[in-house]
Formats: sequence, C-alpha cells, structure tokens
Amino acid sequence: YDLTIVSGNLVGRVNGLAVVGNDAGSVLPITAEVTPSQGAGMVIATGLLKEIAQESIKNVSALIKKFSGTDIRKVDIHVQFIGTYNGVEGDSASVTVATAVISALEDIPVRQDVAMTGSLSVRGDVLPIGGVTYKIEAAAKAGIRTIIIPQSNLADVLIEERYSDMVSIIPVTRIEEVLRYALVPEDKEAFEQKLLQIGKHMDIPKMPMPADNVAA
Amino acid sequence: YDLTIVSGNLVGRVNGLAVVGNDAGSVLPITAEVTPSQGAGMVIATGLLKEIAQESIKNVSALIKKFSGTDIRKVDIHVQFIGTYNGVEGDSASVTVATAVISALEDIPVRQDVAMTGSLSVRGDVLPIGGVTYKIEAAAKAGIRTIIIPQSNLADVLIEERYSDMVSIIPVTRIEEVLRYALVPEDKEAFEQKLLQIGKHMDIPKMPMPADNVAA
Amino acid sequence: YDLTIVSGNLVGRVNGLAVVGNDAGSVLPITAEVTPSQGAGMVIATGLLKEIAQESIKNVSALIKKFSGTDIRKVDIHVQFIGTYNGVEGDSASVTVATAVISALEDIPVRQDVAMTGSLSVRGDVLPIGGVTYKIEAAAKAGIRTIIIPQSNLADVLIEERYSDMVSIIPVTRIEEVLRYALVPEDKEAFEQKLLQIGKHMDIPKMPMPADNVAA
Amino acid sequence: YDLTIVSGNLVGRVNGLAVVGNDAGSVLPITAEVTPSQGAGMVIATGLLKEIAQESIKNVSALIKKFSGTDIRKVDIHVQFIGTYNGVEGDSASVTVATAVISALEDIPVRQDVAMTGSLSVRGDVLPIGGVTYKIEAAAKAGIRTIIIPQSNLADVLIEERYSDMVSIIPVTRIEEVLRYALVPEDKEAFEQKLLQIGKHMDIPKMPMPADNVAA
Amino acid sequence: YDLTIVSGNLVGRVNGLAVVGNDAGSVLPITAEVTPSQGAGMVIATGLLKEIAQESIKNVSALIKKFSGTDIRKVDIHVQFIGTYNGVEGDSASVTVATAVISALEDIPVRQDVAMTGSLSVRGDVLPIGGVTYKIEAAAKAGIRTIIIPQSNLADVLIEERYSDMVSIIPVTRIEEVLRYALVPEDKEAFEQKLLQIGKHMDIPKMPMPADNVAA
Amino acid sequence: YDLTIVSGNLVGRVNGLAVVGNDAGSVLPITAEVTPSQGAGMVIATGLLKEIAQESIKNVSALIKKFSGTDIRKVDIHVQFIGTYNGVEGDSASVTVATAVISALEDIPVRQDVAMTGSLSVRGDVLPIGGVTYKIEAAAKAGIRTIIIPQSNLADVLIEERYSDMVSIIPVTRIEEVLRYALVPEDKEAFEQKLLQIGKHMDIPKMPMPADNVAA
Ligand SMILES: [Ca+2]
Ligand SMILES: [Ca+2]
Ligand SMILES: [Ca+2]
Ligand SMILES: [Ca+2]
Ligand SMILES: [Ca+2]
Ligand SMILES: [Ca+2]
Ligand SMILES: [Ca+2]
Ligand SMILES: [Ca+2]
Ligand SMILES: [Ca+2]
Ligand SMILES: [Ca+2]
Ligand SMILES: [Ca+2]
Ligand SMILES: [Ca+2]
Repeated sequence: YDLTIVSGNLVGRVNGLAVVGNDAGSVLPITAEVTPSQGAGMVIATGLLKEIAQESIKNVSALIKKFSGTDIRKVDIHVQFIGTYNGVEGDSASVTVATAVISALEDIPVRQDVAMTGSLSVRGDVLPIGGVTYKIEAAAKAGIRTIIIPQSNLADVLIEERYSDMVSIIPVTRIEEVLRYALVPEDKEAFEQKLLQIGKHMDIPKMPMPADNVAA
Repeated sequence: YDLTIVSGNLVGRVNGLAVVGNDAGSVLPITAEVTPSQGAGMVIATGLLKEIAQESIKNVSALIKKFSGTDIRKVDIHVQFIGTYNGVEGDSASVTVATAVISALEDIPVRQDVAMTGSLSVRGDVLPIGGVTYKIEAAAKAGIRTIIIPQSNLADVLIEERYSDMVSIIPVTRIEEVLRYALVPEDKEAFEQKLLQIGKHMDIPKMPMPADNVAA
Repeated sequence: YDLTIVSGNLVGRVNGLAVVGNDAGSVLPITAEVTPSQGAGMVIATGLLKEIAQESIKNVSALIKKFSGTDIRKVDIHVQFIGTYNGVEGDSASVTVATAVISALEDIPVRQDVAMTGSLSVRGDVLPIGGVTYKIEAAAKAGIRTIIIPQSNLADVLIEERYSDMVSIIPVTRIEEVLRYALVPEDKEAFEQKLLQIGKHMDIPKMPMPADNVAA
Repeated sequence: YDLTIVSGNLVGRVNGLAVVGNDAGSVLPITAEVTPSQGAGMVIATGLLKEIAQESIKNVSALIKKFSGTDIRKVDIHVQFIGTYNGVEGDSASVTVATAVISALEDIPVRQDVAMTGSLSVRGDVLPIGGVTYKIEAAAKAGIRTIIIPQSNLADVLIEERYSDMVSIIPVTRIEEVLRYALVPEDKEAFEQKLLQIGKHMDIPKMPMPADNVAA
Repeated sequence: YDLTIVSGNLVGRVNGLAVVGNDAGSVLPITAEVTPSQGAGMVIATGLLKEIAQESIKNVSALIKKFSGTDIRKVDIHVQFIGTYNGVEGDSASVTVATAVISALEDIPVRQDVAMTGSLSVRGDVLPIGGVTYKIEAAAKAGIRTIIIPQSNLADVLIEERYSDMVSIIPVTRIEEVLRYALVPEDKEAFEQKLLQIGKHMDIPKMPMPADNVAA
Repeated sequence: YDLTIVSGNLVGRVNGLAVVGNDAGSVLPITAEVTPSQGAGMVIATGLLKEIAQESIKNVSALIKKFSGTDIRKVDIHVQFIGTYNGVEGDSASVTVATAVISALEDIPVRQDVAMTGSLSVRGDVLPIGGVTYKIEAAAKAGIRTIIIPQSNLADVLIEERYSDMVSIIPVTRIEEVLRYALVPEDKEAFEQKLLQIGKHMDIPKMPMPADNVAA
C-alpha cells in the first residue's frame, strides 16, 4: 500500500523528506490537527520521535506561539509523523512540522505537489540539514514536483540528470518563504500580515515588583 | 473461558482485531467508559500498551476532542484493552478505540457482530495496517459477520474460500464511515450532525496581545 | 503471626485472594480509607503493585468515579494491599479493590466471612481470572465460608471434596452482584439506588465552542 | 558520636527501631516538622527510603489527613530519618512516623524514654513487623525504658533475661494507643477528642451532577 | 585559577567544606540567590548533587519555610554549589546551604573568613558529619580563620599543631548559633527576632470539615 | 555548509565558544526567542544538553528572573544551541545563554563580531572555565574580532602569535560587563538602569501567618 499524496491541496498535511539508512531518502508525510485544549495547551507529537526530533518540536513551538496572535493556551496541537515505525531522528523535519501546524491552525490548505526539508532556529531561520541529494531523488521518484530546501544546502545538491528535469528546487533562508510557497490562502493579504508577526518582537508586561533597595 | 461477544449491541464495547505472533490473528475487545474528571480531564488507557500503541491513543484523542462539542475537560475517558497480558504493539486498534470512546461518550450502542481494524490520522483518515488477512480469518472463526478494514489494505486481503462466504468486508477511508456502520444511534439525524464536526475547522480565539513593535 | 480475619463485618476491609507461585493460593486482605484530598483527588495504592495490578487500580477508579455521585475531587482514596512484600501481579484483585473502596466511601461494613476474586471491565463487568481452584482452597483453609468468583470461571473450579463441603461458591457477572452480596448496608433501599448509578450513562456538558466554519 | 536521646520530652522527635543486617537492631530516630505549604501541601520524607518504606509514608499520610481536622493543604510535612546512609527498607517505622508527625502538627512533646515499632493500616490498625526481639534488645542497650510493639508480635518476643528487667513492653492494636502512651499533651481532654477523629467516617460532599439518563 | 574568597562580607555566598576522596578536604563555596517565583515557588539546587545531598536540600527547605515569615511561594530560591564537577555526596553542607539562603533572602552579608560544616535536622538541630579533621585542615590552608562545626564532632577533631594556631573552632548545636556567628546584620535586634521564629510552632488553620458521623 | 556569522548585529543570537574533544575549540552559536507563555512560563533549552549544561540553564534563569522587572510568568524563553548533534557538556556557555536571552527579552541586538565564554554564579559573577586557549584560537580562525573571557582565566591564555594580532581579549568579572560590551541598545541610559537591577536585592512580601505560639 502507498501513503503518498502528490497532487491537490490539503489542510494540515505536508510532504516532508527523510533519510533512510545511509544512502536513501523517502517521503515522510506529516499531519497536524488543532483541538480545544485540556489544561494549558500542549503540542503532542507522535511517530517514535528520538531526542533531537523531540527537541525540534519544541523549537517549532516557539514559532507557533508567535504566529498570528492565536491564544495557544486554548488549543492542543497534534503533530503526527505518518508510518515511522522505526523512529524519527534529527531535526530536518522542522520546517515541515511548522508548515503543517500553521496550515491546521489557520485552516489554509497546503500544496501536496511540494515536498520540503530543513531545520529551524527558534527565530525562524532555515538552517542546513543532511542527505539533501537522497531526499530530492526520493521526492522526484514519488512524483513530487517542487522541493523546498535550505539555501545553505544548495552547494550540497548533486542530483542525477534524469531527476533534475522532473523537479524544481526552491532554496530558502526563512520560514516565511516556505509558508508563502507551500500554503494556498484564500485571503493572501491577511496571510501576509500574519507572516509579519513571526519577525516581530513581543513586548512583555512589567511585573508588579515590591520596592527595591540597592544592597550594600 | 471465552471473552468473545459476537451478537447484539453494547455501549462502549467494540470488537477489535490483533495479530498474534507472526501468522495468526485474534479478536481483541476494547471497552471504554466516561466518568466525571479529576483535574483537567484525561484519557486513561490500560492493557500494557507499548510505545506505538500509547501514541495511537494520543492520536485518537485529537478526534475525540473535536467530536460533537463535548467539553472534554469535564470527563476522564477510560479505555481498556481486554485480556492483553502480553502487551499491545502497533497502532492498528486506533479505529476500534475511537469507536469505543465515541460510543461511551454519546451512549450509542455498537454492533457486536462487527469487528474492525485500522490506523487513524489525527484528521480522521483511516490508514493501512498489517496482518489484515490473519485478522479477517480470526474474526470469521470467532463468529463475526462483518469486518471493517482500511480501503488501502483491500489489495492485501487473501482469505480462504471457506471464510469468504462467512464474512463481509467493508473498506473505508474515513472514521465517519466506521462510526456510521458500527454504531446504532436512536436519533440518526442528530448523529449525522455530530459526524460533520470531525471534518470541521475549529476557529481559535485571538490572544489579548501586548502592543507589537517591529524590531530592527 | 496471622493477619486473617474471617468473621464479623468491617468497614474498608475485604478478603481478596491471590495465587502464590504456580500452584498455591492465599488470602490477600485489602484495606481502603477515604480522606480529604490534597489537590484534585487521587487514588493512592500501596503494596508493591506491578504493572498490570497498577493498571487494574485505574480501571477500578472508573467505577468509583461513577458510583453514588460522590465528588471524587474532594477525596484521596487510599488502597492498601496487606503483607505483599514480594509484590502484586495481575488484575484479579479488581473486584476486591472496588468493594473495599466503596465500603470506605459509603461507610458500609463488609462481611469478613466472604472472600472474592475477579477482574473488572471499566463498565462494571466481572471478567475471568486465573488460579481459581487454588484460591478457593486457600480461602477454605483460612476459614472463609463464601467465595465470590467470576461466572466465566465456573467451569474451571475443581475443588477437593473436603473443601467443597466447607465453602459456598457465588458466581457473578457484574460488580453490583458482588456489592449486594458482600456489603451490609443499614439502609438497603438507599444502597440499591446507588448501585443503579454504576450502569447509568453520565451526560456531559457541551463546550462553549467558538463559531465553526466548514473547511474546504 | 552518638545521636541517641533517651530521656526528656521533645516535639517532633521519636525513637524508632530498625533491623540492621539479619541479626541486629538499632535505635532509629525520626524527626518531623510542619511548615507553611508551597502549592497543595506535601509530605516530604528523607533518609534514602526504599520502595516499601516510601509506600509506608503514603499510608501514614492517610491517617494524618484525618487526624484533628487540620487543613493539610496549608502545610508541608517534613519527615527525616536520621543517620540512615544505607537506606531504609520495610514499613516497620510507620507508627514512629505517624507519632512524630502528629507531635509536630499539634506541638505535643513525645517521651524520649519510649521507643516504638509497628506497621500501620490506612485505617489505623497496628500490624505486625519483623525482628522484634533484635529491636527490643537494641532499645534496651541504648537506655530506652519502654517499647511499644504490635500486639500480634507479642508471641515473637524472646528477649534475654538481662534485658527483660530493663524494659517494659507495651503491646498495641491501634495507633490511638501508641499516641496516648508516647505523647505528653498539656490538655488531655482536647487530645482525647482528636484521637476520636481517627476512627470516624468522613462524609463526602455530593457532586453537582448533570442529569442522568438510564442507558438502554 | 582560584575560586576561594577568605575575607570581607558577601551576601548569598558561604564557604562550605567538603571531603575529597578518602583523606583530603576542600573549601566548597555555595552561592544563593532569591528571585520572583514562577508557579508556586521552588528551591533549585545545582552542582551535580547526588541523592543524599538532594535530600539535604529538602531538609534545609523546612527551615527556610519557617524563618522570618517570608512568603516562600512568591520566590524561587537558587542554590549553587560552585565547581563541583564530580558531584556532591552527603548532607554535610546543610548548614552552609541554610546560611547562604537566609543571607540571600534577608540581604544580610556573610563573613567570608568563616567556613562551616554540619548536617541539619528539619527542626534546626546541627547533627554530626564525617571528615571533620580533613575539612578543618583544608580551611586553614586556604586562609580561613574560623570554622563552625557540630558540637557532637568536637571529639573527632585531631588537627596538626601548625594549623591549630591558625584557626579557631566554633562548636554549635543549633542553626541559630551558626547564623548569629556568620551573618553580619545591620539591625541586630530585628535579626534576633527572626531567629526566634525557627524554634516556634506554627499553628495550622482548621479545615472546614463536613459533619462527622461515628461509624459503627 | 557554514553556520557562522561574524559581522553585523542580530537580536537573540550570540557567538559562544566550545571545546571539541581534548584539544580543539569551535564557535557555538546560541539563539534565543521569547514567546507568550503556556502555563506559568518556562525556559526551554534544546541542543542535547548534558547534566551540567542543563544545570547551567537553571543558573542563568536566576539572573533572567531578576533582570529588568519583566514578568517572567507571561513568557516562555526558548534557548537553542545550534548544530550540537553530539551534545553539550559543561557550563561554560552560561554567559552566552544569558546574553542571548536578555537580547531577545529586551529586543536589543548583539554584536556578531564578538564571541564569549564563561560560567556564571546565580548572583551574576563570571566564573572561570576550561579550554580558554583552544576557544580563542577557534574564534580567531572563524573571523571573530573580540573575545570576552572570565578575568580569572586570563593567566591561562597562551595564544599563538599569528592569532594574537587578530583578536582582542576582554576579561570580565560580572555579567553586567558582558552585556555592556556585547549588546547594542538604542537607549543606553534605559539599558544602564536595567543592568543595575541585577545587583539589587528583591524585597519579598511577608506571609499572612497564623498566630505563633512559642513551643515548650
Ligand atoms: Ca523577540
Ligand atoms: Ca545584593
Ligand atoms: Ca482544523
Ligand atoms: Ca526581532
Ligand atoms: Ca457511559
Ligand atoms: Ca478541515
Ligand atoms: Ca471512612
Ligand atoms: Ca450505559
Ligand atoms: Ca512545629
Ligand atoms: Ca469507620
Ligand atoms: Ca538578593
Ligand atoms: Ca517547637
């Protein structure tokens, strides 16, 4: 059976890319859903994520908490890595997770003919990842047409001739570029306004402090 | 002794299917009950669930939190895998758990002549599972009449002649189809309205944010 | 010294039965007490319970939360397996725990000339357990007069002649039957009303949801 | 150096008794203090307590929560096993812990010429323990005059002639007897009233339940 | 490089003493700081503390919660063992930790020409520790002038002639003596009032209890 | 690919320094971001931090909670060690973490031509670290112009001639000196006011205590 979808638009589903073993890639779909929260709101990720992968979910959370003014305490965010029965290592799915969650939060469909890979800083920078060539070839074989990769990985790309005609490579440095390319919003202007929030600074309320005395 | 029930309708009890060893199946009943919550509301699953099985419970929770507008913080949901003294592996009981919990939450009886198997995405898609032929034969031997399986597993079904006359196979792609087939609601119209909630998007309240300043 | 009590009525104490090694049984007393809660209310079980035994406490909790309308968040429930310095395996003490806790919660004495064994579903069904013959013989030797067992275990009972004259066997399918037999309430009518709650469905308040929009 | 105190009265300090190795006893002092709580109120026990000893602290908590109507959520209770650098096994210090904590809670001094040993049920019954003869001899050697033991251990006591003249043995069946003997309250009448609470049943407020419907 | 400071007065810094290996001592500085709390207020100790050392922090917390009426839920207390990259064993730094924290809480400087060692009971008694001679010699070599030790360790002190002229030994039985010696308060009268709190009993509010009924 | 940035100013990003193996250094960038909190506010650090490194994050938290009166319960602080797939040992990144977090909290850019290393006390003192020469050489090779180190490490610096012309060394004893050098505030006066808070004592509200009675 085959879990791949490579055409149309779907809310909360993104084609990620993974390295399998040492010299092969595969398409790794990630789905997200947003529900009313229990307690203070959580991000719940499944798919046997190992330590670096679990940490990458926390880093993606930093972006989600800033994006678009959503009151994140009112929702639980479910992130599901599909079919990863041998576990997920590394943080190269960070941009994929961020895209899936923002799609689900905002109910904006994602292009299924696009696949993506890339690590994220907590401030929204797209950082380089490993195995970029294996991932591109796996995407091409699966029928994907466009692949988003970190710009800092561009020099690592060495794909075979037969695949290079099949796929376009989009190099990016920021998560906003990923979202602009992969999401298909109805209201493009409102969407662009929300993207601006990611780079903004959040002013923090001052604390009602007791009177301070300078100590000796 | 025998824990199998294959006729009549019961609230909160569903006949699931499991693989035993490498080449056998068995009927695995799952019961659910809903009680007043302590704290913020929890899903409590028992039956020695291993890691993937525990993660599948979290994924089912995503669906439950959306279904039918129930205030999930007011209830604890108990899910019990019956007789699994060697533990439960895998996520192929996801549709079974979802069906048992929704039956208990809504007090709608489940057909006991039906068995089911299938994984779930957090968005309600029924995903393929392993061992489908062994499971169907075990259900048939136990006296089950109808078996719900993921449509993406249909090509894997290779059951023997003598069983193929005994059981009907229902292939599905969405959890709504499972619930429509297995549950026996008194008020079918109200039930159909609730099923529609699963596919809906939940708008999330905006946060009362401090004034933002664009950073340099 | 001897911890066995086989006559009279006591609040919060029930004679359970355990298998010791492979071919012997023993009387396993369980005591329960209910106190004002700290925080949201907990069930605190002691006696070196292993994994299945700990899970069985969670399943019993499902019943307790429904029984008799007690506000379970206001109490901590202490369950103590007495003298189990090598640990407790399995879930065959579930009916014993449920009986001890309900006795303590309602301040209704339990008959000490009765012993019991049986697993519980989260919905109140009494499920079969192992070692029923060893348990019955141990109870008989200890001076117990009546033994409650799961009806589905009746075919497994093979007790020696000399014990069969000493003890009566009560087969049951529901926890309500266990409670009716073992508890000695002052007000039988009020007690019978409370037993009815176990089989009832609890309606759950609807959530104040944000307006829903059907997604594309 | 020597940590033993065997005369006078002290608040929050009790001489317990332990078995060391297989054939020796020792005096094991336990101190308790009660402080304003952080959060919901905790019992914090130190001294490298192993699993059964930790469970015994939970059982003692059941008694403390009932005793004398103290609002236990407002306090943290600290219990310190003194000088136990190799850890504490078993539950034979339960009566000692209960006595130290109630002394600290109520600010009632404890007789230091008394030592004690005994396990506790969650309902206040004193249950038998091991090594009673070794413990009595260690207490006698340390200068203790009176030793409280479980009545069910009386048959196990085999102390040498030279010690039997030095110490009195007080057998007990209930924690109230321990407290009456070891504590030295200023107001005996008020104290006696509080002891009565331990054996009382606490009525529990009913829950504001949603309307119930009997399920089919 | 050298982390030792042996003159002047500093807030929140105390020279403790440790045993290194089997036959050497060292000066172990401890710093504390008090900050606005997150949540209910915590004591956060760093420096690779092993089990007994972590437990000793909990025992010190008992004293801090009583001292001077500070609302401990409003603060987080940070305790830092400096330079302990191989971990901290034992509870002999208890008086040092208590002194550092009370200095930081009250903003009272600590004499840096003093070093100290000693265990604490939860009620404020200074209990004996090991390696007292090695510790005194290490303090003397480092330039410390005065060393506070438990009075019960006085008989263990066997320091060489050449050190005995360099240092004074102050034996103590209570934490109040340690604080009186090492702290340098501006307002000595107010400070003395606070020391009295440590030995006081805290009355605990009664609980609004449901009506009690004596059980049969 | 290369993650190094050695010119310009960026908010929330600081060039730290690490030792790799036994005899090499590397530039270790750390990024921080501040978001609305879920629950009571947390510091979330990623990058496979080992035990001492995790403890150092707690120590940095002490400083952050005091700095500038920010209500820390309203924010989650994300700290990301970039590219540390083999884990982070030690606490020598403490000043780097403090600088990155304060930059993100206050939206003040950090000089990227500066690198830094140093441990921190919970009171803001910069403490010595290991491998200072390897770190300086790695920074110089990467194009860094200025390196902040603990003053107590100055005697350990033995850099080669060819690097000594390329870089300036800034020795410091307090975190305020680090912040003054590395941050580029728009409003220098306001910034200087905030730095003063770090050394101030925070008065703590007194607790509404029950009436105290001196115990006997
Ligand atoms: Ca920011
Ligand atoms: Ca200060
Ligand atoms: Ca949605
Ligand atoms: Ca910014
Ligand atoms: Ca129900
Ligand atoms: Ca949708
Ligand atoms: Ca009771
Ligand atoms: Ca029902
Ligand atoms: Ca007290
Ligand atoms: Ca009673
Ligand atoms: Ca301070
Ligand atoms: Ca006192």
